[in-house]
Amino acid sequence: MALDEFELIRRHFAVAELSFPAPGLVLGIGDDCALLEVPPGEQLAMSMDCLQEDVHFPAGCDPRRLAEKALRVNLSDLAAMGAAPLCFTLGLSLPQADTGWLAAFAQGLGDVAQQFRCPLAGGDTTRGPLSICIQVQGTLPRGKALQRSGARVGDIIYVTGRLGDSAMALPLVLGGDSALSDLPDADREAVLRAYYHPEPRVAAGQGLRDLASAAIDLSDGLASDLGHILQASGVGAEIDVERLPLSELSIPTATERDRLQAAISGGDDYELCFTAAPENSERIQRCMQELGLAVTAIGRIRESAGIEWRGAAPDIIEPGVTGYRHFH
Amino acid sequence: MALDEFELIRRHFAVAELSFPAPGLVLGIGDDCALLEVPPGEQLAMSMDCLQEDVHFPAGCDPRRLAEKALRVNLSDLAAMGAAPLCFTLGLSLPQADTGWLAAFAQGLGDVAQQFRCPLAGGDTTRGPLSICIQVQGTLPRGKALQRSGARVGDIIYVTGRLGDSAMALPLVLGGDSALSDLPDADREAVLRAYYHPEPRVAAGQGLRDLASAAIDLSDGLASDLGHILQASGVGAEIDVERLPLSELSIPTATERDRLQAAISGGDDYELCFTAAPENSERIQRCMQELGLAVTAIGRIRESAGIEWRGAAPDIIEPGVTGYRHFH
Repeated sequence: MALDEFELIRRHFAVAELSFPAPGLVLGIGDDCALLEVPPGEQLAMSMDCLQEDVHFPAGCDPRRLAEKALRVNLSDLAAMGAAPLCFTLGLSLPQADTGWLAAFAQGLGDVAQQFRCPLAGGDTTRGPLSICIQVQGTLPRGKALQRSGARVGDIIYVTGRLGDSAMALPLVLGGDSALSDLPDADREAVLRAYYHPEPRVAAGQGLRDLASAAIDLSDGLASDLGHILQASGVGAEIDVERLPLSELSIPTATERDRLQAAISGGDDYELCFTAAPENSERIQRCMQELGLAVTAIGRIRESAGIEWRGAAPDIIEPGVTGYRHFH
Repeated sequence: MALDEFELIRRHFAVAELSFPAPGLVLGIGDDCALLEVPPGEQLAMSMDCLQEDVHFPAGCDPRRLAEKALRVNLSDLAAMGAAPLCFTLGLSLPQADTGWLAAFAQGLGDVAQQFRCPLAGGDTTRGPLSICIQVQGTLPRGKALQRSGARVGDIIYVTGRLGDSAMALPLVLGGDSALSDLPDADREAVLRAYYHPEPRVAAGQGLRDLASAAIDLSDGLASDLGHILQASGVGAEIDVERLPLSELSIPTATERDRLQAAISGGDDYELCFTAAPENSERIQRCMQELGLAVTAIGRIRESAGIEWRGAAPDIIEPGVTGYRHFH
């Protein structure tokens, strides 16, 4: 029997694991609009990220992992703004209504939705090439958003976690089972997690609201995303390359140079890159320690434009290549 | 020279005609999130609608008209809830960065954005098959949303405007220039407008906040969308078929039966269907008159489930066909 659109949505998405009640979500799936209430003194932050098959993820990839990634990368934008997740909406385009695929996809979404207490509030399901458009909504106290434009000369530049894991994992993920089969089980799972399960730094973002001057999440690579902060703030930066927390993924064929390039130009890490006045340094370390999250000072904001990569071989930064781009 | 994603967005979308300031929009395009402020005592309404090439619109269609339609159908969801537009976000997937196409698309979006004072606040542009995912945000006083679940036995059922225009226009729009060329210029433009320029009943929706018991916008056809009100409210309906305000589009080949079927089962009208207690009848007429909008009482809510189409030939309602569906 053919499933119609409404039945499809109801069966897989209007379930307690995915569209559960949450503070501020007055009305969820099932009407012309969802309804939210923002507490007095708070603002609503929202961000949309769309993933296309064959562009952002390989065709035929595990729907549960794919769903996890799609929601995680969106939550990362809330993290970068210092917002607490409230709910998300889903625009899903599918070539056909495959019940097994939908069940796995909904399961992946539900796992992340529950982890971050961020339920599905609505959306649209259409027939078409596989693509996933998610918009996340979050809240934060008025005036406390971590914008890109706040970096000041003398600020220290930090990153959370390690850089380049996802870029290191990518060739193996794209290579599929044959590329992955050479790895021991634990390493294989680590590679898949690096690519599909980025950890949105939601708690860190909120903790940094009163400490950081500017923040962004690393989706296109350090060079590109730090560039956005510099441009929005009208400043430049010097980065101590030997301080970069390089990927430690166990990939026997990877060279040190691969790891360095992945850290600088690789995308999809979803760590936070942020700037802060030097006097906040101790409080930042303490805040991150409480969250069990590594944080590394990698450089400093300066007046003259651009990024100086100190201690890097001159050819490590390919001219013009600053990160992941569409429409080349 | 290749355009990168950021340049593409900046050039075409971060322009004053499209991403202009609006009350409540604290931060628009250009950071990890947009920021909104909802006035005290108000709620935020949001809705997402996605359009896919070859599913929701013909390949190669005029990008300016397409953009108009994409934003208009989304605003229609705000109208159906009684919300005032605040801003929208855009997830655009494009096979290539065609400057002419983007300029025309942005122009169409800008025209509608300005008409409804609903600027672009953010989004995502990706490479992929042409699809347009829009989320609209609006505000309305707490507790005043027009939900689908409020219809009560004895309520009168109304529709705004005329029904079936878009469904009548569809074969001509799909037939392209050759199908349209037989029509006089004015009729051809009327056909294109019926399909691409639905009028979201935004002012009407707000006017009905204190008058209607339930509302929905007609995107999938009267039979299907009224069905959603009935299901959500746990009631049934009887419709006086001869009262339906049929399409008056000038299409010489169309029969009366075609017009009736288009009104009942045709989609894409984006008129409001709403229910209201009989004692509100006069105020509803007055409200709609002030807006210059036709409103027609087409039937009544009753207890027994389903829709009785009074005065219709038994075969006018094809069994099982209640409106537009995906995934057949």
